[in-house]
Amino acid sequence: MSDESAPIDRILARALEAATGLDAPPGLAAALRHAVFPGGARIRPRLSLAVAEACGMPHPALSGAVAAAIEFVHCASLVHDDLPCFDDSALRRGRPSVHVQFGAPLAVLAGDALIVQGFDTLARGCGEAPHLLPKLVSLLAGCSGMPYGIAGGQGWECEPRVDPVAYARAKTGALFAAATMGGAASAGEAPEPWRVFGEQLGLAYQLADDLADLLSDPTAIGKPVGRDRVLGRPNTAHLLGQDSACARLETLVADAVAAIPACRNREQLRSLVAAEVRRLLPPDLSRAA
Amino acid sequence: MSDESAPIDRILARALEAATGLDAPPGLAAALRHAVFPGGARIRPRLSLAVAEACGMPHPALSGAVAAAIEFVHCASLVHDDLPCFDDSALRRGRPSVHVQFGAPLAVLAGDALIVQGFDTLARGCGEAPHLLPKLVSLLAGCSGMPYGIAGGQGWECEPRVDPVAYARAKTGALFAAATMGGAASAGEAPEPWRVFGEQLGLAYQLADDLADLLSDPTAIGKPVGRDRVLGRPNTAHLLGQDSACARLETLVADAVAAIPACRNREQLRSLVAAEVRRLLPPDLSRAA
Repeated sequence: MSDESAPIDRILARALEAATGLDAPPGLAAALRHAVFPGGARIRPRLSLAVAEACGMPHPALSGAVAAAIEFVHCASLVHDDLPCFDDSALRRGRPSVHVQFGAPLAVLAGDALIVQGFDTLARGCGEAPHLLPKLVSLLAGCSGMPYGIAGGQGWECEPRVDPVAYARAKTGALFAAATMGGAASAGEAPEPWRVFGEQLGLAYQLADDLADLLSDPTAIGKPVGRDRVLGRPNTAHLLGQDSACARLETLVADAVAAIPACRNREQLRSLVAAEVRRLLPPDLSRAA
Repeated sequence: MSDESAPIDRILARALEAATGLDAPPGLAAALRHAVFPGGARIRPRLSLAVAEACGMPHPALSGAVAAAIEFVHCASLVHDDLPCFDDSALRRGRPSVHVQFGAPLAVLAGDALIVQGFDTLARGCGEAPHLLPKLVSLLAGCSGMPYGIAGGQGWECEPRVDPVAYARAKTGALFAAATMGGAASAGEAPEPWRVFGEQLGLAYQLADDLADLLSDPTAIGKPVGRDRVLGRPNTAHLLGQDSACARLETLVADAVAAIPACRNREQLRSLVAAEVRRLLPPDLSRAA
Protein backbone atom coordinates (compact mmCIF):
# COMPACT_ATOMS: atom_id res chain seq x y z
CA MET A 1 0.00 0.00 0.00
CA SER A 2 2.63 2.54 -1.01
CA ASP A 3 1.45 6.01 -1.98
CA GLU A 4 2.09 5.22 -5.62
CA SER A 5 -0.59 3.61 -7.75
CA ALA A 6 1.62 3.86 -10.85
CA PRO A 7 2.83 0.21 -10.69
CA ILE A 8 -0.80 -0.97 -10.41
CA ASP A 9 -1.78 1.23 -13.32
CA ARG A 10 0.95 -0.31 -15.45
CA ILE A 11 -0.32 -3.82 -14.66
CA LEU A 12 -3.91 -2.78 -15.40
CA ALA A 13 -2.94 -1.11 -18.68
CA ARG A 14 -1.03 -4.18 -19.83
CA ALA A 15 -3.91 -6.47 -18.88
CA LEU A 16 -6.38 -4.27 -20.76
CA GLU A 17 -4.29 -4.05 -23.93
CA ALA A 18 -5.40 -7.37 -25.45
CA ALA A 19 -9.06 -6.55 -24.78
CA THR A 20 -8.99 -3.11 -26.39
CA GLY A 21 -6.73 -3.60 -29.43
CA LEU A 22 -7.41 -2.79 -33.07
CA ASP A 23 -9.79 -5.75 -33.46
CA ALA A 24 -12.10 -4.48 -30.72
CA PRO A 25 -15.30 -2.49 -31.29
CA PRO A 26 -13.94 1.05 -30.69
CA GLY A 27 -16.80 2.37 -28.54
CA LEU A 28 -16.70 -0.49 -26.06
CA ALA A 29 -12.89 -0.36 -25.98
CA ALA A 30 -13.06 3.35 -25.09
CA ALA A 31 -15.70 2.63 -22.43
CA LEU A 32 -13.41 0.01 -20.84
CA ARG A 33 -10.50 2.44 -20.72
CA HIS A 34 -12.75 5.16 -19.28
CA ALA A 35 -13.95 2.75 -16.58
CA VAL A 36 -10.42 1.87 -15.48
CA PHE A 37 -8.34 5.04 -16.15
CA PRO A 38 -7.68 7.33 -14.47
CA GLY A 39 -8.37 5.30 -11.38
CA GLY A 40 -9.33 6.15 -7.84
CA ALA A 41 -7.06 5.34 -4.90
CA ARG A 42 -6.56 1.76 -6.16
CA ILE A 43 -6.80 0.77 -2.52
CA ARG A 44 -7.85 -2.87 -3.11
CA PRO A 45 -5.03 -3.81 -5.50
CA ARG A 46 -2.47 -1.95 -3.37
CA LEU A 47 -3.71 -3.84 -0.33
CA SER A 48 -3.46 -7.13 -2.22
CA LEU A 49 0.09 -6.42 -3.34
CA ALA A 50 1.08 -5.30 0.17
CA VAL A 51 -0.12 -8.62 1.60
CA ALA A 52 1.62 -10.57 -1.17
CA GLU A 53 4.81 -8.66 -0.34
CA ALA A 54 4.37 -9.36 3.35
CA CYS A 55 4.20 -13.06 2.40
CA GLY A 56 7.46 -12.88 0.44
CA MET A 57 5.86 -12.57 -3.02
CA PRO A 58 7.56 -15.56 -4.73
CA HIS A 59 5.43 -15.06 -7.89
CA PRO A 60 5.34 -11.31 -8.60
CA ALA A 61 3.55 -11.68 -11.95
CA LEU A 62 0.77 -13.70 -10.36
CA SER A 63 0.46 -11.29 -7.42
CA GLY A 64 0.20 -8.43 -9.91
CA ALA A 65 -2.47 -10.34 -11.83
CA VAL A 66 -4.49 -10.91 -8.65
CA ALA A 67 -4.30 -7.22 -7.78
CA ALA A 68 -5.39 -6.23 -11.29
CA ALA A 69 -8.21 -8.80 -11.34
CA ILE A 70 -9.63 -7.42 -8.11
CA GLU A 71 -9.49 -3.87 -9.46
CA PHE A 72 -11.22 -4.92 -12.71
CA VAL A 73 -14.08 -6.47 -10.76
CA HIS A 74 -14.27 -3.35 -8.59
CA CYS A 75 -14.40 -1.08 -11.66
CA ALA A 76 -17.12 -3.31 -13.17
CA SER A 77 -19.22 -2.91 -10.03
CA LEU A 78 -18.86 0.89 -10.14
CA VAL A 79 -19.94 1.04 -13.79
CA HIS A 80 -23.04 -1.06 -13.16
CA ASP A 81 -23.78 0.64 -9.84
CA ASP A 82 -23.86 4.05 -11.57
CA LEU A 83 -26.42 2.90 -14.20
CA PRO A 84 -29.75 4.73 -14.38
CA CYS A 85 -31.58 1.61 -13.10
CA PHE A 86 -29.40 1.59 -9.93
CA ASP A 87 -27.90 4.76 -8.44
CA ASP A 88 -28.31 6.84 -11.61
CA SER A 89 -25.05 8.57 -10.80
CA ALA A 90 -23.75 10.96 -13.45
CA LEU A 91 -20.35 11.53 -11.83
CA ARG A 92 -17.53 9.13 -10.95
CA ARG A 93 -13.97 10.04 -10.03
CA GLY A 94 -14.76 13.62 -11.00
CA ARG A 95 -15.72 12.72 -14.58
CA PRO A 96 -18.91 11.64 -16.36
CA SER A 97 -19.77 8.06 -15.40
CA VAL A 98 -19.54 5.45 -18.16
CA HIS A 99 -23.23 5.41 -19.06
CA VAL A 100 -23.32 9.23 -19.29
CA GLN A 101 -20.29 9.28 -21.58
CA PHE A 102 -21.02 6.17 -23.68
CA GLY A 103 -24.70 5.28 -23.11
CA ALA A 104 -26.30 2.54 -21.01
CA PRO A 105 -25.72 -0.34 -23.51
CA LEU A 106 -21.95 0.15 -23.55
CA ALA A 107 -21.95 0.62 -19.77
CA VAL A 108 -23.67 -2.75 -19.29
CA LEU A 109 -21.21 -4.39 -21.70
CA ALA A 110 -18.20 -2.65 -20.14
CA GLY A 111 -19.13 -4.07 -16.74
CA ASP A 112 -19.56 -7.54 -18.23
CA ALA A 113 -16.26 -7.36 -20.08
CA LEU A 114 -14.41 -6.12 -16.98
CA ILE A 115 -15.69 -9.04 -14.90
CA VAL A 116 -14.47 -11.43 -17.61
CA GLN A 117 -11.20 -9.49 -17.81
CA GLY A 118 -10.62 -10.18 -14.13
CA PHE A 119 -10.71 -13.94 -14.60
CA ASP A 120 -8.75 -13.76 -17.84
CA THR A 121 -6.04 -11.78 -16.07
CA LEU A 122 -5.74 -14.50 -13.40
CA ALA A 123 -5.40 -17.21 -16.06
CA ARG A 124 -2.79 -15.24 -17.99
CA GLY A 125 -0.85 -14.43 -14.82
CA CYS A 126 -0.58 -17.93 -13.36
CA GLY A 127 2.12 -19.10 -15.77
CA GLU A 128 4.75 -20.14 -13.25
CA ALA A 129 2.29 -21.30 -10.56
CA PRO A 130 -0.75 -22.85 -12.28
CA HIS A 131 -1.51 -24.95 -9.19
CA LEU A 132 -2.57 -21.74 -7.41
CA LEU A 133 -5.22 -20.86 -10.00
CA PRO A 134 -8.20 -22.91 -8.69
CA LYS A 135 -8.09 -21.15 -5.31
CA LEU A 136 -7.63 -17.73 -6.92
CA VAL A 137 -10.54 -18.19 -9.33
CA SER A 138 -12.73 -19.32 -6.41
CA LEU A 139 -11.72 -16.27 -4.37
CA LEU A 140 -12.45 -13.85 -7.21
CA ALA A 141 -15.78 -15.56 -7.98
CA GLY A 142 -16.73 -15.56 -4.31
CA CYS A 143 -16.14 -11.83 -3.88
CA SER A 144 -17.92 -10.83 -7.07
CA GLY A 145 -20.86 -13.23 -7.44
CA MET A 146 -23.73 -14.71 -5.48
CA PRO A 147 -24.48 -14.98 -2.63
CA TYR A 148 -21.59 -13.39 -0.71
CA GLY A 149 -19.98 -11.15 -3.36
CA ILE A 150 -20.71 -7.79 -4.92
CA ALA A 151 -23.67 -9.06 -6.99
CA GLY A 152 -25.15 -10.48 -3.78
CA GLY A 153 -24.62 -7.15 -2.02
CA GLN A 154 -26.27 -5.21 -4.82
CA GLY A 155 -29.02 -7.83 -4.83
CA TRP A 156 -29.77 -6.93 -1.19
CA GLU A 157 -30.26 -3.31 -2.31
CA CYS A 158 -33.30 -4.55 -4.26
CA GLU A 159 -34.92 -6.22 -1.23
CA PRO A 160 -37.57 -4.58 0.97
CA ARG A 161 -35.70 -5.70 4.12
CA VAL A 162 -31.91 -5.65 4.34
CA ASP A 163 -29.60 -7.00 7.03
CA PRO A 164 -27.04 -4.14 7.06
CA VAL A 165 -24.20 -6.42 8.20
CA ALA A 166 -24.77 -8.99 5.42
CA TYR A 167 -25.14 -6.11 2.98
CA ALA A 168 -21.89 -4.37 3.93
CA ARG A 169 -20.00 -7.67 4.06
CA ALA A 170 -21.08 -8.60 0.52
CA LYS A 171 -20.93 -5.19 -1.09
CA THR A 172 -17.61 -3.99 0.35
CA GLY A 173 -16.10 -6.52 2.76
CA ALA A 174 -15.95 -9.36 0.24
CA LEU A 175 -13.68 -7.54 -2.18
CA PHE A 176 -11.35 -6.37 0.60
CA ALA A 177 -11.22 -9.92 1.95
CA ALA A 178 -10.44 -11.17 -1.56
CA ALA A 179 -7.65 -8.59 -1.74
CA THR A 180 -5.93 -9.78 1.44
CA MET A 181 -6.69 -13.49 0.88
CA GLY A 182 -5.79 -13.31 -2.81
CA GLY A 183 -2.52 -11.54 -2.03
CA ALA A 184 -1.61 -14.33 0.39
CA ALA A 185 -2.80 -17.09 -1.96
CA SER A 186 -0.76 -15.61 -4.83
CA ALA A 187 2.29 -16.10 -2.61
CA GLY A 188 1.36 -19.72 -1.98
CA GLU A 189 0.15 -19.04 1.58
CA ALA A 190 -3.15 -20.32 2.99
CA PRO A 191 -5.65 -17.51 2.38
CA GLU A 192 -8.11 -18.18 5.22
CA PRO A 193 -6.05 -16.55 8.04
CA TRP A 194 -6.09 -13.30 6.03
CA ARG A 195 -9.89 -13.09 5.81
CA VAL A 196 -10.68 -11.14 9.01
CA PHE A 197 -8.02 -8.51 8.29
CA GLY A 198 -9.59 -7.83 4.89
CA GLU A 199 -13.17 -7.96 6.11
CA GLN A 200 -12.53 -5.53 8.97
CA LEU A 201 -10.65 -3.17 6.66
CA GLY A 202 -13.59 -3.36 4.26
CA LEU A 203 -16.03 -2.42 7.00
CA ALA A 204 -13.72 0.45 8.01
CA TYR A 205 -13.53 1.59 4.41
CA GLN A 206 -17.32 1.44 4.03
CA LEU A 207 -17.77 3.49 7.20
CA ALA A 208 -15.23 6.06 5.97
CA ASP A 209 -17.19 6.20 2.71
CA ASP A 210 -20.44 6.62 4.66
CA LEU A 211 -18.82 9.48 6.59
CA ALA A 212 -17.73 11.06 3.30
CA ASP A 213 -21.31 10.82 2.02
CA LEU A 214 -22.40 12.61 5.20
CA LEU A 215 -19.71 15.29 5.39
CA SER A 216 -17.79 15.85 2.20
CA ASP A 217 -17.66 18.37 -0.52
CA PRO A 218 -18.59 16.59 -3.80
CA THR A 219 -15.77 18.25 -5.72
CA ALA A 220 -13.30 16.80 -3.21
CA ILE A 221 -14.42 13.17 -3.64
CA GLY A 222 -15.42 13.28 -7.31
CA LYS A 223 -18.94 11.88 -6.90
CA PRO A 224 -22.27 13.13 -5.57
CA VAL A 225 -22.74 13.25 -1.78
CA GLY A 226 -25.85 12.71 0.35
CA ARG A 227 -26.92 10.01 -2.13
CA ASP A 228 -27.42 7.26 0.47
CA ARG A 229 -30.24 9.21 2.12
CA VAL A 230 -31.84 9.94 -1.28
CA LEU A 231 -31.58 6.29 -2.36
CA GLY A 232 -32.60 4.89 1.02
CA ARG A 233 -29.32 2.97 1.36
CA PRO A 234 -28.05 1.75 4.71
CA ASN A 235 -25.49 4.33 5.87
CA THR A 236 -23.95 3.61 9.25
CA ALA A 237 -22.57 7.14 9.63
CA HIS A 238 -26.05 8.62 9.15
CA LEU A 239 -27.33 6.11 11.69
CA LEU A 240 -24.67 6.61 14.36
CA GLY A 241 -23.92 10.29 13.91
CA GLN A 242 -20.45 11.70 13.25
CA ASP A 243 -18.85 11.20 16.68
CA SER A 244 -19.96 7.61 17.24
CA ALA A 245 -19.10 6.76 13.64
CA CYS A 246 -15.55 8.05 14.15
CA ALA A 247 -15.17 6.00 17.33
CA ARG A 248 -16.49 2.92 15.54
CA LEU A 249 -14.06 3.52 12.68
CA GLU A 250 -11.16 3.61 15.15
CA THR A 251 -12.25 0.26 16.62
CA LEU A 252 -12.62 -1.35 13.19
CA VAL A 253 -9.14 -0.28 12.14
CA ALA A 254 -7.65 -1.50 15.44
CA ASP A 255 -9.44 -4.84 14.97
CA ALA A 256 -8.17 -5.09 11.41
CA VAL A 257 -4.59 -4.38 12.40
CA ALA A 258 -4.79 -6.86 15.29
CA ALA A 259 -6.00 -9.50 12.84
CA ILE A 260 -2.92 -9.34 10.58
CA PRO A 261 -1.48 -12.88 10.68
CA ALA A 262 2.16 -13.60 11.40
CA CYS A 263 4.21 -12.73 8.30
CA ARG A 264 7.56 -11.30 7.28
CA ASN A 265 6.69 -7.60 7.40
CA ARG A 266 3.86 -7.39 9.86
CA GLU A 267 4.95 -4.07 11.39
CA GLN A 268 5.37 -2.46 7.97
CA LEU A 269 1.91 -3.67 6.97
CA ARG A 270 0.45 -2.22 10.19
CA SER A 271 1.88 1.23 9.64
CA LEU A 272 0.81 1.21 6.00
CA VAL A 273 -2.75 0.45 7.07
CA ALA A 274 -2.69 3.36 9.52
CA ALA A 275 -1.45 5.72 6.79
CA GLU A 276 -4.06 4.42 4.37
CA VAL A 277 -6.89 4.99 6.84
CA ARG A 278 -5.86 8.63 7.19
CA ARG A 279 -6.11 9.02 3.40
CA LEU A 280 -9.61 7.57 3.44
CA LEU A 281 -11.12 10.05 5.85
CA PRO A 282 -12.74 13.30 4.79
CA PRO A 283 -10.12 16.11 5.05
CA ASP A 284 -11.38 17.57 8.36
CA LEU A 285 -11.32 14.22 10.14
CA SER A 286 -8.06 13.06 8.61
CA ARG A 287 -6.20 16.03 10.10
CA ALA A 288 -7.46 14.88 13.50
CA ALA A 289 -6.64 11.18 12.94
CA MET B 1 -25.68 -34.07 -28.21
CA SER B 2 -28.26 -36.64 -27.16
CA ASP B 3 -31.92 -35.57 -27.29
CA GLU B 4 -32.00 -35.31 -23.52
CA SER B 5 -31.01 -32.10 -21.79
CA ALA B 6 -31.89 -33.61 -18.39
CA PRO B 7 -28.27 -34.49 -17.48
CA ILE B 8 -27.18 -30.93 -18.34
CA ASP B 9 -30.03 -29.53 -16.26
CA ARG B 10 -28.92 -31.58 -13.28
CA ILE B 11 -25.38 -30.21 -13.57
CA LEU B 12 -26.69 -26.64 -13.92
CA ALA B 13 -29.02 -27.04 -10.95
CA ARG B 14 -26.24 -28.37 -8.74
CA ALA B 15 -23.89 -25.58 -9.81
CA LEU B 16 -26.55 -22.97 -9.08
CA GLU B 17 -27.43 -24.32 -5.63
CA ALA B 18 -24.60 -22.64 -3.74
CA ALA B 19 -25.36 -19.29 -5.38
CA THR B 20 -29.05 -19.30 -4.58
CA GLY B 21 -29.22 -20.80 -1.09
CA LEU B 22 -30.86 -19.43 2.03
CA ASP B 23 -28.15 -16.77 2.51
CA ALA B 24 -28.84 -15.24 -0.91
CA PRO B 25 -31.03 -12.17 -1.52
CA PRO B 26 -34.27 -13.92 -2.56
CA GLY B 27 -35.18 -11.71 -5.53
CA LEU B 28 -31.82 -12.10 -7.25
CA ALA B 29 -31.79 -15.84 -6.48
CA ALA B 30 -35.20 -16.19 -8.16
CA ALA B 31 -33.98 -14.14 -11.14
CA LEU B 32 -30.99 -16.47 -11.56
CA ARG B 33 -33.21 -19.55 -11.52
CA HIS B 34 -35.62 -17.91 -14.00
CA ALA B 35 -32.70 -17.11 -16.32
CA VAL B 36 -31.46 -20.71 -16.35
CA PHE B 37 -34.62 -22.86 -15.90
CA PRO B 38 -36.46 -24.08 -17.87
CA GLY B 39 -33.79 -23.88 -20.53
CA GLY B 40 -33.83 -23.79 -24.29
CA ALA B 41 -32.28 -26.56 -26.37
CA ARG B 42 -29.04 -26.48 -24.27
CA ILE B 43 -27.27 -26.95 -27.57
CA ARG B 44 -23.90 -25.49 -26.47
CA PRO B 45 -23.45 -27.63 -23.34
CA ARG B 46 -24.67 -30.74 -25.17
CA LEU B 47 -22.17 -30.04 -27.94
CA SER B 48 -19.41 -29.58 -25.37
CA LEU B 49 -20.23 -32.87 -23.64
CA ALA B 50 -20.47 -34.68 -26.99
CA VAL B 51 -16.96 -33.53 -27.91
CA ALA B 52 -15.64 -34.46 -24.46
CA GLU B 53 -17.20 -37.89 -24.91
CA ALA B 54 -15.69 -38.22 -28.37
CA CYS B 55 -12.32 -37.52 -26.71
CA GLY B 56 -12.83 -40.29 -24.15
CA MET B 57 -13.97 -38.00 -21.29
CA PRO B 58 -11.42 -39.04 -18.64
CA HIS B 59 -12.68 -36.31 -16.25
CA PRO B 60 -16.50 -36.39 -16.40
CA ALA B 61 -16.98 -33.91 -13.54
CA LEU B 62 -14.73 -31.38 -15.26
CA SER B 63 -16.42 -31.90 -18.63
CA GLY B 64 -19.79 -31.35 -16.95
CA ALA B 65 -18.46 -28.18 -15.34
CA VAL B 66 -17.24 -26.85 -18.69
CA ALA B 67 -20.63 -27.55 -20.28
CA ALA B 68 -22.43 -25.80 -17.40
CA ALA B 69 -20.04 -22.84 -17.46
CA ILE B 70 -20.69 -22.28 -21.15
CA GLU B 71 -24.46 -22.43 -20.61
CA PHE B 72 -24.24 -19.94 -17.69
CA VAL B 73 -22.38 -17.46 -19.87
CA HIS B 74 -24.92 -18.02 -22.65
CA CYS B 75 -27.85 -17.41 -20.25
CA ALA B 76 -26.11 -14.26 -18.97
CA SER B 77 -25.85 -12.93 -22.51
CA LEU B 78 -29.55 -13.58 -23.16
CA VAL B 79 -30.58 -11.75 -19.98
CA HIS B 80 -28.49 -8.68 -20.82
CA ASP B 81 -29.42 -8.84 -24.51
CA ASP B 82 -33.14 -8.68 -23.64
CA LEU B 83 -32.70 -5.53 -21.48
CA PRO B 84 -34.64 -2.40 -22.47
CA CYS B 85 -31.39 -0.64 -23.43
CA PHE B 86 -30.56 -3.44 -25.93
CA ASP B 87 -33.24 -5.48 -27.70
CA ASP B 88 -36.02 -4.58 -25.24
CA SER B 89 -37.40 -8.08 -25.63
CA ALA B 90 -40.28 -8.99 -23.32
CA LEU B 91 -40.36 -12.68 -24.20
CA ARG B 92 -37.72 -15.40 -23.87
CA ARG B 93 -38.26 -19.15 -24.13
CA GLY B 94 -42.01 -18.47 -24.15
CA ARG B 95 -41.97 -16.69 -20.79
CA PRO B 96 -41.45 -13.11 -19.60
CA SER B 97 -37.78 -12.18 -19.93
CA VAL B 98 -35.87 -11.58 -16.69
CA HIS B 99 -36.17 -7.78 -16.68
CA VAL B 100 -39.93 -7.98 -17.30
CA GLN B 101 -40.40 -10.43 -14.45
CA PHE B 102 -37.90 -9.00 -11.95
CA GLY B 103 -37.03 -5.47 -13.14
CA ALA B 104 -33.94 -4.14 -14.91
CA PRO B 105 -31.69 -3.90 -11.79
CA LEU B 106 -32.05 -7.61 -10.98
CA ALA B 107 -31.63 -8.47 -14.67
CA VAL B 108 -28.30 -6.60 -14.79
CA LEU B 109 -27.18 -8.33 -11.58
CA ALA B 110 -28.40 -11.75 -12.74
CA GLY B 111 -26.26 -11.46 -15.87
CA ASP B 112 -23.25 -10.41 -13.81
CA ALA B 113 -23.74 -13.25 -11.32
CA LEU B 114 -24.16 -15.82 -14.11
CA ILE B 115 -20.89 -14.77 -15.74
CA VAL B 116 -19.15 -15.17 -12.37
CA GLN B 117 -20.96 -18.48 -11.85
CA GLY B 118 -19.42 -19.77 -15.07
CA PHE B 119 -15.88 -19.26 -13.82
CA ASP B 120 -16.73 -20.48 -10.33
CA THR B 121 -18.15 -23.68 -11.82
CA LEU B 122 -14.89 -24.30 -13.69
CA ALA B 123 -12.85 -23.81 -10.52
CA ARG B 124 -15.12 -26.12 -8.49
CA GLY B 125 -15.10 -28.77 -11.23
CA CYS B 126 -11.36 -29.03 -11.81
CA GLY B 127 -10.68 -31.03 -8.64
CA GLU B 128 -9.00 -34.04 -10.22
CA ALA B 129 -7.34 -32.14 -13.07
CA PRO B 130 -6.35 -28.67 -11.80
CA HIS B 131 -3.61 -28.43 -14.44
CA LEU B 132 -6.34 -28.05 -17.09
CA LEU B 133 -7.89 -24.99 -15.42
CA PRO B 134 -5.70 -22.21 -16.92
CA LYS B 135 -6.63 -23.20 -20.48
CA LEU B 136 -10.32 -23.60 -19.60
CA VAL B 137 -10.52 -20.20 -17.87
CA SER B 138 -8.83 -18.60 -20.91
CA LEU B 139 -11.30 -20.28 -23.27
CA LEU B 140 -14.32 -19.16 -21.26
CA ALA B 141 -12.96 -15.63 -20.94
CA GLY B 142 -12.15 -15.49 -24.64
CA CYS B 143 -15.65 -16.48 -25.72
CA SER B 144 -17.43 -14.15 -23.31
CA GLY B 145 -15.29 -11.00 -23.12
CA MET B 146 -13.47 -8.50 -25.31
CA PRO B 147 -12.59 -8.36 -28.14
CA TYR B 148 -13.60 -11.74 -29.64
CA GLY B 149 -16.33 -12.92 -27.25
CA ILE B 150 -19.99 -12.15 -26.65
CA ALA B 151 -19.32 -8.73 -25.10
CA GLY B 152 -17.26 -7.85 -28.17
CA GLY B 153 -20.07 -9.04 -30.44
CA GLN B 154 -22.67 -7.00 -28.58
CA GLY B 155 -20.20 -4.09 -28.64
CA TRP B 156 -20.27 -4.23 -32.45
CA GLU B 157 -24.06 -3.81 -32.30
CA CYS B 158 -23.42 -0.34 -30.87
CA GLU B 159 -21.14 0.73 -33.76
CA PRO B 160 -22.33 2.68 -36.82
CA ARG B 161 -20.45 0.28 -39.14
CA VAL B 162 -20.32 -3.46 -38.48
CA ASP B 163 -18.31 -6.18 -40.18
CA PRO B 164 -20.99 -8.93 -40.27
CA VAL B 165 -18.40 -11.73 -40.20
CA ALA B 166 -16.56 -10.35 -37.14
CA TYR B 167 -19.94 -9.71 -35.53
CA ALA B 168 -21.30 -13.25 -36.06
CA ARG B 169 -18.00 -14.81 -35.04
CA ALA B 170 -17.94 -12.91 -31.72
CA LYS B 171 -21.64 -13.01 -30.89
CA THR B 172 -22.35 -16.66 -31.77
CA GLY B 173 -19.29 -18.42 -33.16
CA ALA B 174 -17.10 -17.78 -30.11
CA LEU B 175 -19.35 -19.62 -27.67
CA PHE B 176 -19.76 -22.59 -30.03
CA ALA B 177 -15.99 -22.70 -30.53
CA ALA B 178 -15.56 -22.60 -26.75
CA ALA B 179 -18.01 -25.50 -26.48
CA THR B 180 -16.05 -27.75 -28.84
CA MET B 181 -12.60 -26.56 -27.68
CA GLY B 182 -13.60 -26.65 -24.02
CA GLY B 183 -15.03 -30.15 -24.39
CA ALA B 184 -11.73 -31.32 -25.87
CA ALA B 185 -9.63 -29.42 -23.31
CA SER B 186 -11.66 -30.91 -20.43
CA ALA B 187 -10.56 -34.32 -21.73
CA GLY B 188 -6.92 -33.24 -21.76
CA GLU B 189 -6.81 -32.89 -25.56
CA ALA B 190 -5.35 -29.90 -27.40
CA PRO B 191 -8.32 -27.57 -28.00
CA GLU B 192 -7.10 -25.73 -31.12
CA PRO B 193 -7.96 -28.48 -33.67
CA TRP B 194 -11.58 -28.28 -32.48
CA ARG B 195 -11.96 -24.56 -33.20
CA VAL B 196 -13.15 -24.66 -36.84
CA PHE B 197 -15.79 -27.32 -36.11
CA GLY B 198 -17.27 -25.09 -33.38
CA GLU B 199 -17.00 -21.86 -35.36
CA GLN B 200 -18.68 -23.33 -38.45
CA LEU B 201 -21.44 -24.86 -36.33
CA GLY B 202 -21.90 -21.47 -34.68
CA LEU B 203 -22.27 -19.77 -38.05
CA ALA B 204 -24.75 -22.47 -39.11
CA TYR B 205 -26.70 -21.98 -35.90
CA GLN B 206 -26.75 -18.20 -36.39
CA LEU B 207 -28.02 -18.63 -39.93
CA ALA B 208 -30.72 -21.05 -38.75
CA ASP B 209 -31.68 -18.45 -36.12
CA ASP B 210 -31.74 -15.76 -38.83
CA LEU B 211 -34.03 -18.00 -40.90
CA ALA B 212 -36.29 -18.47 -37.88
CA ASP B 213 -36.47 -14.69 -37.44
CA LEU B 214 -37.51 -14.47 -41.10
CA LEU B 215 -39.99 -17.37 -41.23
CA SER B 216 -41.17 -18.59 -37.87
CA ASP B 217 -44.27 -18.31 -35.83
CA PRO B 218 -43.32 -16.53 -32.54
CA THR B 219 -45.28 -19.02 -30.42
CA ALA B 220 -43.19 -21.83 -31.91
CA ILE B 221 -39.80 -20.35 -30.97
CA GLY B 222 -40.81 -18.58 -27.75
CA LYS B 223 -39.46 -15.14 -28.65
CA PRO B 224 -40.49 -12.30 -30.97
CA VAL B 225 -39.72 -12.67 -34.70
CA GLY B 226 -38.83 -10.07 -37.32
CA ARG B 227 -36.83 -8.27 -34.62
CA ASP B 228 -33.58 -8.10 -36.61
CA ARG B 229 -35.18 -5.87 -39.24
CA VAL B 230 -36.73 -3.64 -36.54
CA LEU B 231 -33.43 -3.37 -34.67
CA GLY B 232 -31.32 -2.98 -37.83
CA ARG B 233 -29.26 -6.09 -36.95
CA PRO B 234 -27.22 -7.95 -39.57
CA ASN B 235 -29.41 -10.91 -40.65
CA THR B 236 -27.88 -13.09 -43.35
CA ALA B 237 -31.19 -14.81 -44.15
CA HIS B 238 -32.85 -11.43 -44.81
CA LEU B 239 -29.85 -10.53 -46.98
CA LEU B 240 -29.64 -13.76 -49.01
CA GLY B 241 -33.31 -14.70 -49.22
CA GLN B 242 -34.70 -18.05 -48.08
CA ASP B 243 -33.35 -20.31 -50.85
CA SER B 244 -29.78 -19.03 -50.85
CA ALA B 245 -29.76 -19.01 -47.07
CA CYS B 246 -30.78 -22.69 -47.02
CA ALA B 247 -28.03 -23.57 -49.50
CA ARG B 248 -25.49 -21.63 -47.42
CA LEU B 249 -26.66 -23.44 -44.29
CA GLU B 250 -26.06 -26.79 -45.96
CA THR B 251 -22.51 -25.75 -46.89
CA LEU B 252 -21.76 -24.50 -43.37
CA VAL B 253 -22.92 -27.78 -41.81
CA ALA B 254 -20.92 -29.82 -44.31
CA ASP B 255 -17.84 -27.69 -43.56
CA ALA B 256 -18.39 -28.14 -39.84
CA VAL B 257 -18.73 -31.91 -40.10
CA ALA B 258 -15.66 -32.12 -42.34
CA ALA B 259 -13.70 -30.17 -39.73
CA ILE B 260 -14.26 -32.70 -36.92
CA PRO B 261 -10.75 -33.81 -35.92
CA ALA B 262 -9.79 -37.44 -35.60
CA CYS B 263 -11.25 -38.84 -32.38
CA ARG B 264 -12.77 -42.02 -30.95
CA ASN B 265 -16.36 -41.53 -32.06
CA ARG B 266 -16.10 -39.35 -35.12
CA GLU B 267 -18.94 -41.01 -37.02
CA GLN B 268 -21.28 -40.81 -34.04
CA LEU B 269 -20.46 -37.11 -33.61
CA ARG B 270 -21.16 -36.54 -37.32
CA SER B 271 -24.61 -38.11 -37.24
CA LEU B 272 -25.46 -36.28 -34.01
CA VAL B 273 -24.59 -32.95 -35.68
CA ALA B 274 -26.85 -33.79 -38.62
CA ALA B 275 -29.74 -34.61 -36.27
CA GLU B 276 -29.14 -31.44 -34.28
CA VAL B 277 -29.20 -29.26 -37.38
CA ARG B 278 -32.62 -30.65 -38.29
CA ARG B 279 -33.88 -29.62 -34.85
CA LEU B 280 -32.57 -26.09 -35.38
CA LEU B 281 -34.48 -25.38 -38.53
CA PRO B 282 -37.96 -23.84 -38.61
CA PRO B 283 -40.54 -26.70 -38.89
CA ASP B 284 -41.23 -26.30 -42.63
CA LEU B 285 -37.56 -26.45 -43.57
CA SER B 286 -36.66 -29.19 -41.12
CA ARG B 287 -39.16 -31.56 -42.75
CA ALA B 288 -37.32 -30.98 -46.02
CA ALA B 289 -33.81 -31.37 -44.49
